[in-house]
Amino acid sequence: MIKIAQSKLDAFAGILRALVPECRLMITADGWNTAATDTANVAMVLATLPKAAFEEYTETGNDEIGMDVPKWSDMLKVMKTPTSTITIERKDTGKIGISDSAYTYTHVPLDPNTVRKRPNVPGINLPVVVVISPAELAEAIRAMAVIGDKVRFTAGKDGLELAAEGDTDKLRKVLTGKDGSKLPDKPVSSLFSLDYLKDISRATKDAGSISVCVGEDHPIRFDFEIAGITASYLVAPRIEEAGN
Amino acid sequence: MIKIAQSKLDAFAGILRALVPECRLMITADGWNTAATDTANVAMVLATLPKAAFEEYTETGNDEIGMDVPKWSDMLKVMKTPTSTITIERKDTGKIGISDSAYTYTHVPLDPNTVRKRPNVPGINLPVVVVISPAELAEAIRAMAVIGDKVRFTAGKDGLELAAEGDTDKLRKVLTGKDGSKLPDKPVSSLFSLDYLKDISRATKDAGSISVCVGEDHPIRFDFEIAGITASYLVAPRIEEAGN
Amino acid sequence: MIKIAQSKLDAFAGILRALVPECRLMITADGWNTAATDTANVAMVLATLPKAAFEEYTETGNDEIGMDVPKWSDMLKVMKTPTSTITIERKDTGKIGISDSAYTYTHVPLDPNTVRKRPNVPGINLPVVVVISPAELAEAIRAMAVIGDKVRFTAGKDGLELAAEGDTDKLRKVLTGKDGSKLPDKPVSSLFSLDYLKDISRATKDAGSISVCVGEDHPIRFDFEIAGITASYLVAPRIEEAGN
Repeated sequence: MIKIAQSKLDAFAGILRALVPECRLMITADGWNTAATDTANVAMVLATLPKAAFEEYTETGNDEIGMDVPKWSDMLKVMKTPTSTITIERKDTGKIGISDSAYTYTHVPLDPNTVRKRPNVPGINLPVVVVISPAELAEAIRAMAVIGDKVRFTAGKDGLELAAEGDTDKLRKVLTGKDGSKLPDKPVSSLFSLDYLKDISRATKDAGSISVCVGEDHPIRFDFEIAGITASYLVAPRIEEAGN
Repeated sequence: MIKIAQSKLDAFAGILRALVPECRLMITADGWNTAATDTANVAMVLATLPKAAFEEYTETGNDEIGMDVPKWSDMLKVMKTPTSTITIERKDTGKIGISDSAYTYTHVPLDPNTVRKRPNVPGINLPVVVVISPAELAEAIRAMAVIGDKVRFTAGKDGLELAAEGDTDKLRKVLTGKDGSKLPDKPVSSLFSLDYLKDISRATKDAGSISVCVGEDHPIRFDFEIAGITASYLVAPRIEEAGN
Repeated sequence: MIKIAQSKLDAFAGILRALVPECRLMITADGWNTAATDTANVAMVLATLPKAAFEEYTETGNDEIGMDVPKWSDMLKVMKTPTSTITIERKDTGKIGISDSAYTYTHVPLDPNTVRKRPNVPGINLPVVVVISPAELAEAIRAMAVIGDKVRFTAGKDGLELAAEGDTDKLRKVLTGKDGSKLPDKPVSSLFSLDYLKDISRATKDAGSISVCVGEDHPIRFDFEIAGITASYLVAPRIEEAGN
C-alpha cells in the first residue's frame, strides 16, 4: 500500500511527461526512480521520488513497471483536489489500483519489456554551475524562440548568457548567477535546439531554483527539486556552429 | 409582441443547441415548446418556455416556426448585457424582429416544412431517479472521457455509479443521490456513448439539480430546470456490452 | 541614439501590424512616420510617431528603412515590462541595436527597395465625421460578423449606423455621435468588407475615441491617437450593392 499527496505524484508524472511518453519505473525499498531518453535520443530525464515523499510506503523489494506517462498524468489531473491523497495498490494480477476519495482507477501498466531500456547516464564532468530562477529561464527561452530555433548557452563570470541567432538577427540575455553558482574564469559555451529547452523550461517552472551545469560543446544539465522530487534534464549539444 | 429577459431566451437556445442545429418551435397561448432529435436519432431534447417566463406575451393561437438554433443563439449572445430585455415581433411578412435597446435584428425563420418533424416522445417507464448536482456530473463525465468513449450508468442503493472502460483500464465514480432520489434495491444499469453526455453535461451546468432517470438497458433521461425553462434530454443506450 | 517607452513603440508596431507585414519607415528630424497599403490594396495605414513621443531623439536628417513589422512587434513584446524603456541605436553597418535593461537585440532591417513604395495618400473630401468609442465599434463589428461578411456604414443625424446583411437576415446598430461629430442633414452611406474592419477595430481599442469620416460610396477613414501616435486607417468601399 502506498499513499502520497496528489500534488507530488502529479509533479513526478509532469516532469517525465515533458520529455517521454513512457519509461521503466523502478520501485525499490527507498522509493521510486526512473531514467529515460526522448525518442530522438537527444535529451534525458532522471527523477527520484524518495520514500520520504510518500505518506505511506510499504514496498520492500525491487520491481520494475512500464509507466504510460500521459495516462498517469491525465488520471492524476482527474483526481486533483486541493488536499487529495492518492492511494496506490499493486495487485497480484499485476493491475494497479489508483484512487482518491472520489475515483477508483484500475490500471494495467505497460509490460516493461516493451519499453526502451533505462539509458546509461553519461558520467560527464560539468564543473561550471549557474544557479538561476525558473521564471527567468522560461521567459528568456520564450524570447529566444522569436529569433530562431537554436540557442547558445555561455557561462562566464557574470552568469549564464543565452544567445539566439536567426538568419540575420541576434538576441542576447544574461541570467545572473545566484548563490551556489560556480562560475568560470574563462567562458564555456554550447549550442542547443530550442525545442527541448521550451519543454524543459515549462516543466521546471515550479522549482525554487535550477542549477544549470554547462561545458564547452558538452551536454547541458538542469538539476532541480520540485515537491520533494530530485530531478535532472540532460540535453545533448548541437555541434555545428550557428551561422551568422 | 413578446418580451423576455435575454438570459432566459439565451438559456432556451443553449439547451437546444447542445443537441440540434434546428427544430420546429411551437408557439402557443401557453408559451413556447419544442422537441427534436439529433441527426443520428440517438438523443432527444424537450424544452418548454412557459408563458410565465415572459415579461410580456400576446400569442393566443398555435403556430409553428422553423428555428435555426445557432443563429438565434449567436444573436442572443450579441444582445447580452447584464439586464437586457429582448423584444420579439412577428411580422405579417413572416419575418421576426428581435431587438434589444441597442441592436435591431430582422430574421427570416426556416420554413418548418424543411425541418425534421417533431419526434414522438417515447413513453418509457423509468422508475429509478437519482438527483445529482450538475457540477459533479460534468466533472465525472470529463474524467470518464480520459479512459474511453463509453460510460456505464448504474443506479443502486448509494446513488449513481459512472464507470468507463478503456482497452485495459477502468475508472469508477459514485455520485451520491440527493433528496428526491428514488433509489432501487437491485441495481439497474445501461451503457451510453460519452459524446452526447459531454454536450449534455455542459448544457445543464446552470441547473440547480438534475434528476437522472435510469433503467436496465434502457434510455436515460436527464430532467432539469434552468431560468424557468423545463427541459429533458433523452439518450438511447448502447446495447453491446463494454468489452474488458 | 533614440530612447522611447516600450509601450509607445509597441503601440506603433501594433497599429501597423493590423494591416501590413512590412513598410518603409521614414526617419526624420521630426520623428518617425510611415504609410502603407495592405497586400490587396484595399486598406491603408498612416502613422506618425512625433519626436515629442521619444525620451531621447538625436536623428537630424532624413532616412528610410525597411520595417519588418511582425519582427519589431514580437521583439517589443519580449521587452515588455511595466516601465521599460527601449534604446535604439543605428549602427554604421546598417544594423539596428534594440535593447532594454535585460535583452540586447541586433536587427538587420529590410532593404527599403524590396518593400512596396509609400502609397500616395488619396486626397478625399470626407466632411462627415462621427466621433465614437472604440469599445462600441469593436462590439458592433463583432456582432455584424455573426450575420455576414459586409457592413454598411451610414452617417446620419443620430450618428453612425452599422448594418449587416446576410442571405436573409439583417442586423442594425446605431453608434451615437459624441462631441466633435459633424453629422449630415442627409445621410451618406458606403459598404465595406468586414475583414479589414475586424482588424482595425481590434487595433484601435486603446484609443480614447475614433473619428470616423464617411462619404457616399467613398472610402472610410478612422482617425485616432494612441500613446502619442497620430494614426489613420483608410478602407476602400465595396461598390456592389448588398443583396437582400
